Amino acid sequence: MKGTLNIDGFWAVIPAGGAGTRLWPLSRAGAPKFLLDLTGSGRTLLQQTLDRLAPLVGDRALVVTGARHRDAVCGQLDLPAAQVVGEPSPRDSMAAIGMAAAMLERDDADAILGSFAADHVITDEDAFRACITEAVAVADTGVIVTLGIQPTGPSTAFGYLRLGDPVGGFATARAVRSFTEKPDAATAAEYLATGEYRWNGGMFVTRAAVLLDELAREHPDLAAGLRAIAADPAEMAARWPALTKIAIDHAVAEPAAARGMVATVPGSFGWDDVGDFASLGALLPGDGVKVLGDRDRVLALDSTGLVATAGRTVAVVGLDDVVVVDTGDALLVTDRAHAQQVKAVVDALRQRGADHLL
Amino acid sequence: MKGTLNIDGFWAVIPAGGAGTRLWPLSRAGAPKFLLDLTGSGRTLLQQTLDRLAPLVGDRALVVTGARHRDAVCGQLDLPAAQVVGEPSPRDSMAAIGMAAAMLERDDADAILGSFAADHVITDEDAFRACITEAVAVADTGVIVTLGIQPTGPSTAFGYLRLGDPVGGFATARAVRSFTEKPDAATAAEYLATGEYRWNGGMFVTRAAVLLDELAREHPDLAAGLRAIAADPAEMAARWPALTKIAIDHAVAEPAAARGMVATVPGSFGWDDVGDFASLGALLPGDGVKVLGDRDRVLALDSTGLVATAGRTVAVVGLDDVVVVDTGDALLVTDRAHAQQVKAVVDALRQRGADHLL
Repeated sequence: MKGTLNIDGFWAVIPAGGAGTRLWPLSRAGAPKFLLDLTGSGRTLLQQTLDRLAPLVGDRALVVTGARHRDAVCGQLDLPAAQVVGEPSPRDSMAAIGMAAAMLERDDADAILGSFAADHVITDEDAFRACITEAVAVADTGVIVTLGIQPTGPSTAFGYLRLGDPVGGFATARAVRSFTEKPDAATAAEYLATGEYRWNGGMFVTRAAVLLDELAREHPDLAAGLRAIAADPAEMAARWPALTKIAIDHAVAEPAAARGMVATVPGSFGWDDVGDFASLGALLPGDGVKVLGDRDRVLALDSTGLVATAGRTVAVVGLDDVVVVDTGDALLVTDRAHAQQVKAVVDALRQRGADHLL
Repeated sequence: MKGTLNIDGFWAVIPAGGAGTRLWPLSRAGAPKFLLDLTGSGRTLLQQTLDRLAPLVGDRALVVTGARHRDAVCGQLDLPAAQVVGEPSPRDSMAAIGMAAAMLERDDADAILGSFAADHVITDEDAFRACITEAVAVADTGVIVTLGIQPTGPSTAFGYLRLGDPVGGFATARAVRSFTEKPDAATAAEYLATGEYRWNGGMFVTRAAVLLDELAREHPDLAAGLRAIAADPAEMAARWPALTKIAIDHAVAEPAAARGMVATVPGSFGWDDVGDFASLGALLPGDGVKVLGDRDRVLALDSTGLVATAGRTVAVVGLDDVVVVDTGDALLVTDRAHAQQVKAVVDALRQRGADHLL
């Protein structure tokens, strides 16, 4: 398959960050979500991310990750070390993706990049790649393209984008009229009823130079800093800490959309950001109690939910939608309705000074 | 305190058996309930049983336990080895208590015994000992005396006894008209409404010779077998396996009550048989989530219930009446309403051949 869809000059940029605190105790500061095999596939989320992009990019991929995770990332991927960038400190998504963009622009003024988070799950990979293929062609016209994910419900966990006119000459591409922050439930339901809104999954396809030029309009110091580091990597230590901390949506996507510079390729490819154990449970196969780990170790009587075992026998009796996550040093017990509140456990442990468990 | 209430010629008999399967995975075949410190007191249930009787009996106690647990029992108690009897196989409560009775009768024809299970909890020990003291005096008249526990609710988990006329010359003793098996909830409620019923906690006080003579009426072979083993312990191996397997209630208490030979001393001393995790949770101090083990290891957010930790950090989020029991090789998660169904886990593990977990 590799090569058949290979798009010359197209690079995958994979920001690999985020602690995934709502997936504690599986996800830890030292072993974050993207480094884990959360779906029992034998591949980590990071590996799966590159696996599904490889037919389009071969080994043209740049991973941008925290310096402390760089060795682990290199160990999981078969990429040249120069293609794994270690950030000295977290400076949010614009700096991470912009750094990769500046490196690509430096080597190829026409390079097109697609940025894809390292910790999302896609179930229909063919549809995903078809969507990207059209997005690359649209991006080649000089606009910024975002993948517009078909909502599966009125989620309040994601931002939305509002569709505009069709983009001439393409099968499905539409202009993006605006981006909106995470809405409340009533607003989200209104969005869905119109049929004119898509989820913003934060996946952008654009020429590297276009991204940086757009960034330069609103945040010239940030664009200049990134280009300076790309020109001379020795500048990293001095310049990186001073870079503006801002998300790519705010820094570029929203202002560019206001100027008619953003398009979207709508797609329906089973996207999930695996934001919490409710999401993870829904992704795992099986009925009743879903199991992550050795199914033979789990004994579920009259129960539904999710059990992750690190090897011990886990018995669950008479509980619905239960979430049991068993690791070597910590155990979480909650239910699907409280999946978002797992972050509060991590906060409480931090307050207690239990850093070894974070 | 020891000695002040010491009753000459009165012996404690402690049958230490039962696997406590509804307390799995804390209680195991190899480490049953009575060998465990289930209340966080620093003393096991067996030790607590003897502790609370010591003011009455000093070291006049006989423990009857399975041969495989005899070493553990001897290790926990400061008793002469001859006072810990190992049963070659389980033959139910009549054989266990009857064996002790035969040994006591052999050495002292007037010996009075009180039998008390090794795995119950008593909260008001002074009231308990006062009840026993009267029971010994009543037993000295030649009847069998059972402690009649004041019900705290219409439990369907215990047998009941029906009160008869006061026994002349004693403060609170009453005749026992009959014993009844575990009733259904409606019947139990009717019993309570009359005020004439007490729980049968299986605690009997009687002259050893009276118990065996009563037994000899209904089960002469069993009484003869026990007396033969007491007379010559070398007979144990040959005779024990042939002893009738029967509970003391059926073998002696019920037929003796029908003949007017049973009395009771009603008492209210906070008795609990710690039959399941619902019982155990109610016994532990504290509000919200009760903890067995290191409280600092348990982080409970917006939850109630019971958590037992063997050392790992346990976080519980948003669950009511949850039961989490964490041990080295097995973990149980259920809730109070399903506490009785924990036995089904043990059954399922046995069917799977996971004997190392039982």
